[in-house]
Amino acid sequence: MTTSAESLPAQHRQIVYAQRPQGAPTLACFRLVTVPLVPPADGQVLVRNDVLSVDPYIRMRMEEKDSYAPVMAIGDVFVGRTVGQVVQSRSGAFAPGDWVVGRLGWQDYSLAAPADLQKIDAAEAPATAYLGALGSTGITAWVGLMEFGRPRHGETVLVSAASGAVGSVVGQLAKLQGCRTVGIAGGATKCALVREAYGFDDCVDYKAQDFPAALARAVPQGVDVYFDNVGGPILDAVLPLLNNFSRVPVCGLVSQYNATEPYGVKHLREIFNRRVTMRGFVLSDHKNLWPEATRALTAAYAAGQLHYRETIAQGLENAPQAFIDMLAGANIGKQLVRLRAA
Amino acid sequence: MTTSAESLPAQHRQIVYAQRPQGAPTLACFRLVTVPLVPPADGQVLVRNDVLSVDPYIRMRMEEKDSYAPVMAIGDVFVGRTVGQVVQSRSGAFAPGDWVVGRLGWQDYSLAAPADLQKIDAAEAPATAYLGALGSTGITAWVGLMEFGRPRHGETVLVSAASGAVGSVVGQLAKLQGCRTVGIAGGATKCALVREAYGFDDCVDYKAQDFPAALARAVPQGVDVYFDNVGGPILDAVLPLLNNFSRVPVCGLVSQYNATEPYGVKHLREIFNRRVTMRGFVLSDHKNLWPEATRALTAAYAAGQLHYRETIAQGLENAPQAFIDMLAGANIGKQLVRLRAA
Repeated sequence: MTTSAESLPAQHRQIVYAQRPQGAPTLACFRLVTVPLVPPADGQVLVRNDVLSVDPYIRMRMEEKDSYAPVMAIGDVFVGRTVGQVVQSRSGAFAPGDWVVGRLGWQDYSLAAPADLQKIDAAEAPATAYLGALGSTGITAWVGLMEFGRPRHGETVLVSAASGAVGSVVGQLAKLQGCRTVGIAGGATKCALVREAYGFDDCVDYKAQDFPAALARAVPQGVDVYFDNVGGPILDAVLPLLNNFSRVPVCGLVSQYNATEPYGVKHLREIFNRRVTMRGFVLSDHKNLWPEATRALTAAYAAGQLHYRETIAQGLENAPQAFIDMLAGANIGKQLVRLRAA
Repeated sequence: MTTSAESLPAQHRQIVYAQRPQGAPTLACFRLVTVPLVPPADGQVLVRNDVLSVDPYIRMRMEEKDSYAPVMAIGDVFVGRTVGQVVQSRSGAFAPGDWVVGRLGWQDYSLAAPADLQKIDAAEAPATAYLGALGSTGITAWVGLMEFGRPRHGETVLVSAASGAVGSVVGQLAKLQGCRTVGIAGGATKCALVREAYGFDDCVDYKAQDFPAALARAVPQGVDVYFDNVGGPILDAVLPLLNNFSRVPVCGLVSQYNATEPYGVKHLREIFNRRVTMRGFVLSDHKNLWPEATRALTAAYAAGQLHYRETIAQGLENAPQAFIDMLAGANIGKQLVRLRAA
């Protein structure tokens, strides 16, 4: 076993699943526990997690019934991706000091198999970028847009949750394809960010009184690709604006995750009238596309064409509140939690 | 000009669009008129219509707003496909006595350009088959199932309006692909027809009390292809039964055509969870597939593997009631109207 010079604690902290939510999660759903730190078995590595990514999909893991992935059991460590550094290794593939990203959970340290980890180059971009625009978030945006949206030069690409981690990348990638890009976001601050930081041609505030009319004005040529992150009433407002043969990649339904009664979508008729293709997708089904997506995202980042923002909470103990706030739309850009002092 | 031996009348009858419906159409929406019979201009042919096909899509042409095709104006002759015989021709492409099919409208005689007509072989199958299983109805079934459903051997194919003209063909084609075929239809008589005449493995009555539970029992392996003709609450009942990567070709939304308030679909979340592809399609977009579809349908018919039923009303004056009844599900198989004594 190779070990980093620093001494390791005997115990570490985890956040475990304490209680199933009714609607929006509350702090009672989470419990901070302290457990012994177990050294790696043969072939494993021990990672000290540096930054944790809290994302909407985690809400689905809190359901009673499996969605596209198994739900968490009460007592499980919360699922989530982190970046961190290897501190002990019993695998030839990793050495102490290596920066890695993986689905390592809400905890200070994680045991991992080499196959669960991906090495990152912390010189190429900040480590946190590998949780966001250069990581699974950016790859999600690329796969949904390029594989299922298939935007063509001059088309209009509409994106909901456009100020969010995925949506902001979708808009920038669509712009690079020569599309007119229109975002939907909640409130004037986020809309300004979408236009100014991410370079969308326009952004419409779904909280504004005249939302449906403003949305129609923002897409005078109709919508060719609607990248949907939210579902629900916003999807209903978009459906009548879709063009013939338009594509609707469904990346998530964040408006519905906390809903106790699902919203009934009324304008599905447009799927038929406009010969729309609506397609749900989940990143893990498309591992074959990850290399191409990563190359495209890295190239755009290096060329200064891929911008992102982060909201970083401090301390594992504050991760539950950061997650709750993120579901309510309080964050700007990617919501992260720094687990130790930078 | 070549003319058939029979003498032609000076006038003929048409049914024109009299009034826009609120919800379900009533007889007041239709008006029978008598107009002069105009001889063909150079290049045209005059067709005596023998049988008229009344189909759900016509309801959409009665809307105020265009759907996938332009709506009718008040005073227009109702749109619809007919089979008939050429009685006068000023085109080298057609001679009197030729049997043809085309979108010739609700009228005794129609003027047509050669491009609007397709010759049929009345020896190969009854002429009415070219309005149904061997015509646009059958081709619609083939295109939706084969191009957008893409059924694989051993998969489960579920079809709504399974006793209808399109649905019954879908089930038979899916069976030829080696699929388990399950229909949804209204009432015990239609369900028996679906099983016995069209050879579906099972059929579920959507009017029965325990419909959702019975539907779940009928698809123990889940649903890989849902060929949707109806939309609305039946779609909502099907969504939770879809398998990962299932396909939902949307051929029509007959449950919604007469609705004054559209039904809100609650289980769209499954589109994301199950990574479903939902795709609206309209036959006229896929003319490139017609020859292949026609070959497949004709071969199945010749092999005794394609069965169909017809409900035939008598007389143009009864076409409006036949159309109203068809929208309410009163017909068995393809709803036709014979315009003259056989």
